[in-house]
Amino acid sequence: MTSLFAPRGSYDKIENGTILMPKFDADGLIPVIAQDATSNEVLMFAWMNEEALARTIETGEAWYWSRSRKSFWRKGETSGQTQTVTDIRIDCDQDAILLKVRVGGDGGACHVGYRSCFFRSIPLTADAAKANSPLTLQIKAKKLSDHQHD
Amino acid sequence: MTSLFAPRGSYDKIENGTILMPKFDADGLIPVIAQDATSNEVLMFAWMNEEALARTIETGEAWYWSRSRKSFWRKGETSGQTQTVTDIRIDCDQDAILLKVRVGGDGGACHVGYRSCFFRSIPLTADAAKANSPLTLQIKAKKLSDHQHD
Repeated sequence: MTSLFAPRGSYDKIENGTILMPKFDADGLIPVIAQDATSNEVLMFAWMNEEALARTIETGEAWYWSRSRKSFWRKGETSGQTQTVTDIRIDCDQDAILLKVRVGGDGGACHVGYRSCFFRSIPLTADAAKANSPLTLQIKAKKLSDHQHD
Repeated sequence: MTSLFAPRGSYDKIENGTILMPKFDADGLIPVIAQDATSNEVLMFAWMNEEALARTIETGEAWYWSRSRKSFWRKGETSGQTQTVTDIRIDCDQDAILLKVRVGGDGGACHVGYRSCFFRSIPLTADAAKANSPLTLQIKAKKLSDHQHD
């Protein structure tokens, strides 16, 4: 398959260079973090393939690749929770993407009904690694008051 | 292999439940976003296996799994850029982790010398998806003034 992007170069070119040469994994995907451009809240984690990244760069709207549906997914197409991109960042290894976005619709990003998909907190406990398997940890939603749709 | 955590349940239990049942991928890994607890800057993206997640929960210090070195990696062990965890979040699908951290040492997270690994920005351009392959995009460091470690 012809790549849409420049081929991977040396470590120095990847880490210190100015040419975009993103790494897609064995499934052709790169991980993506979406962060609210105003509040800096981390909203969601998803994946892009080459074409989704190219569409995002081209349109300024977040496009992802749905691994479960095996299809392109313009965020907000059905929910109205669009993501207009204000900045696209790539990390040192060029194998992860950070999108800064303005959220449309009701301002949420999570289909469960919260502003952020990361609405539950895992307790920090000294017993975790020593517990009998499986480790059954209670997690709790911390953001209920923040933005619950219905 | 016996899992350290509770087995995956129904969609409803995963998305709305209060029991931690994290999903590890075919390589036994879960993606992790580290965010500065004070500034909310996204610092880095990395991976944990079960044991790294358990150690992080137990110790309150960020432990990752290095895919390149195939070994555990206590962040900051050599660089001093430790990450003390103030909150661990899990997303709706329970297949991604968000750590909120206080960074030790010189306050950075990236081995290239920036506070955040996401120090380069990809331009938004209308030509991206239509360009001749490969798409050669100039990326530029935006955070030079922010915190560059010599």
